[in-house]
Amino acid sequence: MEVVQVLHMNKGNGDTSYAKNSTVQRKIISFGKTIIEEALLELSSNYDIDSMGIADLGCSTGPNTLSVISQIMDIVRATSGHLRRRVPEFRLFFNDLYSNDFNSLFMLLPAFYKMLKEEKGIGLAPSQCFISGVPGSFYGRLFPSNSLHFVYSFSSLHWLSQVPVGLESYAVKHLNKGKVYISKSSPQSVVNAYSSQFQADFSQFIKSRSQELVPGGRMVLSFLGRKSIDPTTEDGCYQWELLAEALMSLVKEGLIEEDKVASFNAPYYAPCAEELKVEILKEGSFIIDRLEAFEVDWDGGAVADTHNEQGKMMVGERVAKTIRAVVESMLESHFRLGQDTMDVLFIKFAEIVGNHLSKTRTKYINFVISLVRKASHINLEAQPMDVFHF
Amino acid sequence: MEVVQVLHMNKGNGDTSYAKNSTVQRKIISFGKTIIEEALLELSSNYDIDSMGIADLGCSTGPNTLSVISQIMDIVRATSGHLRRRVPEFRLFFNDLYSNDFNSLFMLLPAFYKMLKEEKGIGLAPSQCFISGVPGSFYGRLFPSNSLHFVYSFSSLHWLSQVPVGLESYAVKHLNKGKVYISKSSPQSVVNAYSSQFQADFSQFIKSRSQELVPGGRMVLSFLGRKSIDPTTEDGCYQWELLAEALMSLVKEGLIEEDKVASFNAPYYAPCAEELKVEILKEGSFIIDRLEAFEVDWDGGAVADTHNEQGKMMVGERVAKTIRAVVESMLESHFRLGQDTMDVLFIKFAEIVGNHLSKTRTKYINFVISLVRKASHINLEAQPMDVFHF
Repeated sequence: MEVVQVLHMNKGNGDTSYAKNSTVQRKIISFGKTIIEEALLELSSNYDIDSMGIADLGCSTGPNTLSVISQIMDIVRATSGHLRRRVPEFRLFFNDLYSNDFNSLFMLLPAFYKMLKEEKGIGLAPSQCFISGVPGSFYGRLFPSNSLHFVYSFSSLHWLSQVPVGLESYAVKHLNKGKVYISKSSPQSVVNAYSSQFQADFSQFIKSRSQELVPGGRMVLSFLGRKSIDPTTEDGCYQWELLAEALMSLVKEGLIEEDKVASFNAPYYAPCAEELKVEILKEGSFIIDRLEAFEVDWDGGAVADTHNEQGKMMVGERVAKTIRAVVESMLESHFRLGQDTMDVLFIKFAEIVGNHLSKTRTKYINFVISLVRKASHINLEAQPMDVFHF
Repeated sequence: MEVVQVLHMNKGNGDTSYAKNSTVQRKIISFGKTIIEEALLELSSNYDIDSMGIADLGCSTGPNTLSVISQIMDIVRATSGHLRRRVPEFRLFFNDLYSNDFNSLFMLLPAFYKMLKEEKGIGLAPSQCFISGVPGSFYGRLFPSNSLHFVYSFSSLHWLSQVPVGLESYAVKHLNKGKVYISKSSPQSVVNAYSSQFQADFSQFIKSRSQELVPGGRMVLSFLGRKSIDPTTEDGCYQWELLAEALMSLVKEGLIEEDKVASFNAPYYAPCAEELKVEILKEGSFIIDRLEAFEVDWDGGAVADTHNEQGKMMVGERVAKTIRAVVESMLESHFRLGQDTMDVLFIKFAEIVGNHLSKTRTKYINFVISLVRKASHINLEAQPMDVFHF
């Protein structure tokens, strides 16, 4: 399975769409905002930028996409005001894989441009705003050298560029039968395949961005990870454990072939802080300004009592929907399920999730990392102001 | 009707899609290629460009879109070879209205990037290639100042930014009853409304591009026009005359309300050479390097004998399909026809076109204009080479 071709959030605006089921991501964004604000303040107070290049990597499509960029522009405007400088020209780049629903995103732009002009005075010369879509994998170059000042990415970097080498669906031997990600019962070879793939991908990501960001440019990355060094720890993988359980129960009912589950592994990895630091330091272009981890409820923190049956069901369904909006395209391409079987799968999954959460309140761990591209190998502050004028 | 929201070529790959019905456009592109080649040779031999910004304005979606840019890159590569310079980095921008089918275009990119790498060595450092989609109207700013070296536009500039002022569907008085564009029977007020809208739009286009192109940058524009100063001349408007005839015959059959036809006017204008020159000279930033006009058959020049019934039908159908792929979105939004009525309309239109062409072989007139942004108001050649390094 080529992730570049297959992974995309559920399209449109329907009941199972990503646009309607991205509460968890919204929660995560609100946590990330303070750190973005801090990074932008640093950037703006150190440099007078005429034309600011900002990229959203893994932008997806939905209300979150434009609300984040809008907040970023507010911060930049406010800072410019404080420093008595004019608001820069904005060059905004929305990146996601080729199969992302860019059409839906672009249809939101006329209203967005109108709002920018009327509410923020952006789009009236000289404070222009230019928006473009940049399709492609962020595990490689996407932008010209030194063309960006600020890069951010939410809920995307836990996706690998591909299913780890050796675990692909066409592999001769299935090493991870009955599971779809690292599990307590997975052999060491599975754990190794996943961590190697992560290292290769993440270092490629860091290297590409180091070329695209101007010296002194900043990057805020937010994605799922795990607290412990042990990759089989519950907070790092348990949603996959339960999805595997749902899949296996459909195998028992004869709705899915066992071999299909055996040959499926998610192109996902939840790293720990140590793994992140190693790759960033190894590449060498970035200073880690902040690295924070926080917990997020599987259902984005909506209050519901999982001690009664109805509450359990509600929570289970909500979690299943948020996960379905994200993984359905991938399951579809591997399992080739009809719509009916897909529904059965997620009803089963909702039930399993509801039961699990009534016993243990497992949470996601989310990292937010704030990085600065070194302006000089000796002294970051020594960089002359006009680096940003180009 | 807001053109920005409504006009787009028929999506997808079906029988009525633009991708399958763009022979006329392909023909027009092949005529334009020699002029593009000439413009690029001039550009490359006068300037040593490190990172070349190229924009396709009104790119649409289909095989034409990528084949033109691919040929442009071939010319630049060949010229770099002759001059013993390294091939520049390419920054490619595909522009069209918000409602264009960018998703389909982006899905062609993985194969396109692969071809560039394997067949042309483009995409391997240092000769990178960065492709993005830029949604929005080209009758306004789309790109940062001085960011482009070459702009081209095929079969798009005959579309106005809106239905001419005074002829909108909500106008109190319908000035152009029974017609959908300038016709011999249209009052002078209709002709004036169309030519004023054209002047406003085209001057806005030229002004925006003059800011986006670097000094010495070039632009090749190809679009439909007319030979004579008289806007009611057949080569400039007769396809609309026949479409109005088809619409009125559906009015007679009770399938469309007469008032709906009375309130519809196409956001289209076929200018003559004089009108183009006036606007370009008035704006003042561009030198007209070439302005050529040539004839194109309504069916792209496919050979068929219109003297027998079968031949007439074939030609009529082919022409109807090429026009349907382009105007259907617009008709749909105004007339709100069901799929069946839309089919009836285009069957009728095909019949009318077949009959007409068996009597008079009316052709389109297509202009190709090659423009250079003045590098200095005194002497174009005096511009220093390093203007292009930024």
